[in-house]
Amino acid sequence: MKNKPLRVTDLAWEFLRPVLKPGDTVVDATAGTGQDTLFLRQCVGESGRVFAFDIQAVALQQTKSLLDNSKSVDNVTLICDSHEFIMTRLIDAEIEEGSVKAVMFNLGYFPGGDPAIITKVETTIKALSSALRLLSTGGMMTICLYPGHPGGAEEAQAVIGWGEMLEAPFVAHHFQTLNRKSPPTLVIIQRTR
Amino acid sequence: MKNKPLRVTDLAWEFLRPVLKPGDTVVDATAGTGQDTLFLRQCVGESGRVFAFDIQAVALQQTKSLLDNSKSVDNVTLICDSHEFIMTRLIDAEIEEGSVKAVMFNLGYFPGGDPAIITKVETTIKALSSALRLLSTGGMMTICLYPGHPGGAEEAQAVIGWGEMLEAPFVAHHFQTLNRKSPPTLVIIQRTR
Repeated sequence: MKNKPLRVTDLAWEFLRPVLKPGDTVVDATAGTGQDTLFLRQCVGESGRVFAFDIQAVALQQTKSLLDNSKSVDNVTLICDSHEFIMTRLIDAEIEEGSVKAVMFNLGYFPGGDPAIITKVETTIKALSSALRLLSTGGMMTICLYPGHPGGAEEAQAVIGWGEMLEAPFVAHHFQTLNRKSPPTLVIIQRTR
Repeated sequence: MKNKPLRVTDLAWEFLRPVLKPGDTVVDATAGTGQDTLFLRQCVGESGRVFAFDIQAVALQQTKSLLDNSKSVDNVTLICDSHEFIMTRLIDAEIEEGSVKAVMFNLGYFPGGDPAIITKVETTIKALSSALRLLSTGGMMTICLYPGHPGGAEEAQAVIGWGEMLEAPFVAHHFQTLNRKSPPTLVIIQRTR
């Protein structure tokens, strides 16, 4: 982080690192190329469990090969589905509400076709609300948002608005660069009890 | 940081820690009880230099006794003056522009009498602009703001507006809690080259 501008994707890791410990159950809601999945796998170790979602099979293939190269694939479950079905899929896997230590969202490359923006926002909020119920005490959710992408500004505004409305035991935070146009944004949710 | 809500004063340390190294020159612009001065002293070690400002002598006495207890006082210079004179006082101490690795501001307990709010804001912005010129490449400034205090909302808004206008090589960031009333706010400035 020295001379480079702080980046929301790096910060998400910095915020999560002190929260995670070996044995934790965690979710990468948007696997993409697998960077966050690998990070989570490294934090929770061999005794942890990682669930990685992506609606695009090609993304999960990339994630799988990244994990293979790092010999970190054993306790990672790859799920090819929209993150709006996180809750259903985790309950299928016998993961209970309130038992997940971290959920990561990176909405930079929103997967799937090209539905109307309003649908994207609705899907995102549904997925976030669902993920919130999974979080354990001391758990954390990170959401990287990219207002510079088409539809990204509406999505970011909706997520920030959603964060503003959350009640205890959840605390919502927001990190943003001030002197850039449409900078990436990080929303962090903590469950404090 | 586990089950407790993230706090801007802790985060300022987390952001600064990877930036600082032994031998660095750093400034605590608002010494107060000395917590940040001690933190800075610990980061820059015996070979570093720390300058701590406070307009109230009683604050510097508290800072001195905290440092004494930690046996960290040798290379700390305590300066009883308003932080608006940071630049003058540092140049007096033969510290050049562009040679300070970190400057910390904590505007929670604004020192001094009770001037009009507009004066406070002007003084703050003058101090920040002055401190900016001191920052070295790779340097960082942290500013904790408390919109809940009288005049604090105007001050926070002014500092955020100032951050939005900064140009390269400076990058300004903002961290804030979303679901609290008038939450403390952290502005972070990096000098990237």
